[in-house]
Amino acid sequence: MSGTLYGVGVGPGDPELLTLKAHRLISSAVTVAYPAPDSGASFARSIVAAFIPKAAREIPIVIPMRSERFPAQAIYDRAADEIAEALQHGDVVVLCEGDPFFYGSFMYLFARLAGRTPVRIVPGVTSMTACAAAVQRPLCARNEVLSALPATLPDDELRALIARPGALAIMKVGRHLPRVRALLAEAGLERRAAFVSHASLPHQQAMPLAEAPDTAPYFSMILVPGDDPHAGS
Amino acid sequence: MSGTLYGVGVGPGDPELLTLKAHRLISSAVTVAYPAPDSGASFARSIVAAFIPKAAREIPIVIPMRSERFPAQAIYDRAADEIAEALQHGDVVVLCEGDPFFYGSFMYLFARLAGRTPVRIVPGVTSMTACAAAVQRPLCARNEVLSALPATLPDDELRALIARPGALAIMKVGRHLPRVRALLAEAGLERRAAFVSHASLPHQQAMPLAEAPDTAPYFSMILVPGDDPHAGS
Repeated sequence: MSGTLYGVGVGPGDPELLTLKAHRLISSAVTVAYPAPDSGASFARSIVAAFIPKAAREIPIVIPMRSERFPAQAIYDRAADEIAEALQHGDVVVLCEGDPFFYGSFMYLFARLAGRTPVRIVPGVTSMTACAAAVQRPLCARNEVLSALPATLPDDELRALIARPGALAIMKVGRHLPRVRALLAEAGLERRAAFVSHASLPHQQAMPLAEAPDTAPYFSMILVPGDDPHAGS
Repeated sequence: MSGTLYGVGVGPGDPELLTLKAHRLISSAVTVAYPAPDSGASFARSIVAAFIPKAAREIPIVIPMRSERFPAQAIYDRAADEIAEALQHGDVVVLCEGDPFFYGSFMYLFARLAGRTPVRIVPGVTSMTACAAAVQRPLCARNEVLSALPATLPDDELRALIARPGALAIMKVGRHLPRVRALLAEAGLERRAAFVSHASLPHQQAMPLAEAPDTAPYFSMILVPGDDPHAGS
């Protein structure tokens, strides 16, 4: 293969939260690949749609949303083969929501291609700090510990994680919102917690968790900022 | 006050890792403030030096590096007063290394000014994901928990945190490197760990922890990526 594989973070949603480097690579891309649902638009692609050259070849990596088995090995095998073929003719830019190596699906392509071709990773703004910006609350300070965790974990694991001192970023909230809210209330943290969906997008919602609706979209997060007594002074 | 206070993340060091939004705000800024050491250049300012308008007023917030008392309350009080005065004439852009609300000092200004003037936070690329990009290792996957923690914590706290399952990002390593390395070795994690200093800068160093030098600069980090068995396939 003669091309370089670029894993490019495109940030949380606002096209202006793209980095200058991501903008340069996407604007001059010959081949662009991105995850896409089997119906509807790719979120990663939608963020940078205005910057993709009209002549660029596009490789959507279609992940059925109803799939129980994730990651869908065969889909990433096929996508890696298609990208490997494109790499014979030049660079390939893979668009990654947020940051490529922070809870992203890029790692499945990376695992299949990293030994075979040069790879460059372009970090991006994560939804985690975009959510802190949205609620206007410092996430963690000084000597605090931050725990990032997925809401998809079972109750007992979540309960233990929520009991940790420090700041919490609970991701992939979606349909787990009522369950996570109950566990936070149980720990006495509901009043400190904030809810954010679609961070940085025009339809962003950011509010105290107590005011959050009962149904949340997949792209939503609960933050419990740290309580370093020095942070506020 | 009539202006808006912008807390703007300028990313980990590479000027190309600035967001388009940060670039726009800095390029058109009337007043720019930033943390600075009492001798030598401001790191945050150095990242975006090429983009600051020549006519902009600059407010360095000088933090003595030898200070034992951090945060230095009186310094932030004075800086907040100076920025409040500038806000009477228009917007003020505060440059923040990485992201404003992820272990940053911006929160000390935010705490002093947020109730008095409109504030907008522009999230940035953190050094944490820039380090993962540098070592080309996915930081966390799927259902993994990520713990971000400062190396400055005492041994017993670090030992407990290192024992947690999931991924670790150990920040502010600096002179704590030998101590953290010993604790990771004790936990059997040294071989999985990576060391990065000056992520994304020309003099970046990224290597397995076992190969790291014994003395590390303040801007260095140790990553222990998660070991999700599905992440690599």
